[in-house]
Amino acid sequence: MSLSEFDLIERYFAHCGATRPDVERGVGDDAALLIPAAGRRLAWATDTLVAGRHFPEGAEPAAVGHKALAVNLSDLAAMGAEPAWATLALTLPEAEEAWLTGFAAGLCDLATEHGVALVGGDTTAGPLTITLALAGFVDRPLIRSGARPGDGIWVTGELGGGGIGLEVALGRLTPAEADGAALLQRYYRPQPQVRAGRTLARRATAAVDVSDGLAADLGHILAASGVGATLELAELPLAAAAVNAAGEEATREAALTGGDDYELVVALPPAVEAEMEAAVTADGLALTRIGTIDAEPGLRGREADGGVAPLAVGGHDHFRSEP
Amino acid sequence: MSLSEFDLIERYFAHCGATRPDVERGVGDDAALLIPAAGRRLAWATDTLVAGRHFPEGAEPAAVGHKALAVNLSDLAAMGAEPAWATLALTLPEAEEAWLTGFAAGLCDLATEHGVALVGGDTTAGPLTITLALAGFVDRPLIRSGARPGDGIWVTGELGGGGIGLEVALGRLTPAEADGAALLQRYYRPQPQVRAGRTLARRATAAVDVSDGLAADLGHILAASGVGATLELAELPLAAAAVNAAGEEATREAALTGGDDYELVVALPPAVEAEMEAAVTADGLALTRIGTIDAEPGLRGREADGGVAPLAVGGHDHFRSEP
Repeated sequence: MSLSEFDLIERYFAHCGATRPDVERGVGDDAALLIPAAGRRLAWATDTLVAGRHFPEGAEPAAVGHKALAVNLSDLAAMGAEPAWATLALTLPEAEEAWLTGFAAGLCDLATEHGVALVGGDTTAGPLTITLALAGFVDRPLIRSGARPGDGIWVTGELGGGGIGLEVALGRLTPAEADGAALLQRYYRPQPQVRAGRTLARRATAAVDVSDGLAADLGHILAASGVGATLELAELPLAAAAVNAAGEEATREAALTGGDDYELVVALPPAVEAEMEAAVTADGLALTRIGTIDAEPGLRGREADGGVAPLAVGGHDHFRSEP
Repeated sequence: MSLSEFDLIERYFAHCGATRPDVERGVGDDAALLIPAAGRRLAWATDTLVAGRHFPEGAEPAAVGHKALAVNLSDLAAMGAEPAWATLALTLPEAEEAWLTGFAAGLCDLATEHGVALVGGDTTAGPLTITLALAGFVDRPLIRSGARPGDGIWVTGELGGGGIGLEVALGRLTPAEADGAALLQRYYRPQPQVRAGRTLARRATAAVDVSDGLAADLGHILAASGVGATLELAELPLAAAAVNAAGEEATREAALTGGDDYELVVALPPAVEAEMEAAVTADGLALTRIGTIDAEPGLRGREADGGVAPLAVGGHDHFRSEP
């Protein structure tokens, strides 16, 4: 049988990511055969990256592969799940070997790091579009709808680096070298907070990952929980490289509406805040209290001077924005 | 919160397909939460349709929705699995209400018919591309690698209608009205053989669905099983409407290399052939013996006059063909 381009691609992905005993058959049959863990629930997410929209055309292929899995890992992190299996649907204009080698390396390295096996997929010709579906196990799921008035709002890591990183990636901003490198890394190689998600799942009442901007994503918690919130704008943990590159105001705007940060925002009842802060920071990750859940609907921001004003729950609109 | 186009689309798919007790959370959180059946394996497939490649630009949206699920159901049918959960990754140029209404109807009606719940997804803006991932349960999986010399090769339903139907859809062929309608239906609304797959899983040694042409798909069984095969070309169950429209030779060529038929090809040991034929035909579906698995590698075709010649295991190449 001749080696078609289709076969060539399958070869890149036949042994991608972790080797797992719960994968009975992976890539290469009509469907993967998997053995779910007895008594555990399955969390299942899917996300698509479109060239020219979720990453610039011409982006480094390894970064695209990394990001395609990272955004899905971030969804599973926000459920407190342990990632396990992924399928890849890859649509690309042509089967270019150099591009595929880089893409597979970026994707499969991150998969291995998180114990994920690529178990199947489909490759088609067309405009560059990458859809991953990712499933994992969860015992106590972190849902969006459990936030209660009085809960603290906490966020992992730093915000604003993804949005300002995009400006750098597009050449609209030219920061000092170290800041530029950090911001590009932040934009192209987000690190999904899977471990923190599993820790926070023990106590948090609600969680979401920050993919579309803090305001929009926190808005999902507020809507699902039937509550409001007040953010302490001076407390937002802004990425230092972003503040250096673009200033505090632009970075705060990026944090609130820019997207691409892939941190977790959770609601924590006061009685567990200290415990969770200690548990997450023990893993070397910052966890910062940035506001409070209110009974009053809507999202408000309190400035450093104490003034409170409504914040739009807008953020990234999937049908208008582009990278 | 204003109703963005993103929200609008989620609304179309929030209650799509069957209601299943094993779906704890469907569309609307960071990930779906699912409860796998204890002791059963999970079969998981994914397939992408690209506009202008897997269906003509301007195809009826309900047909596109139907087909996007049907091709995945066909993969699960080929594993002998019982479909359960799907996620939808929909990339479309704009959120056009009429298109979405039709697409959702086509997709969700077929999902309901097969007991599938749509449990999540992602909507993005970009060139029209649809990726579904579909998971289901399986007890005795139908894999590709178990065919043995002496097994009969059997196929469900009819062949060639998908490939000739594409010619009609593209306006390259104008058959008599009834034949044209049947062929368009065949191309746009394939009926995945899920029930037959579950029946055949009891006894078949190997199976595959015919998505890329009989020669290519049977070739997957031969390669995975390390065997060869001889097809009785006069026995291929050619779709009558296709023969009327395009003649026997073109229809046979479509059956062998055209794709889009979504029938099942299975290998059956002689001792179970009669039992399986009776079981599948009892459900009103034809099951036809079209050849024999050989120890000698390669695929051969025997003409009605007894002459045997090698057949190319080519078929549909994902990087060259277009609809």
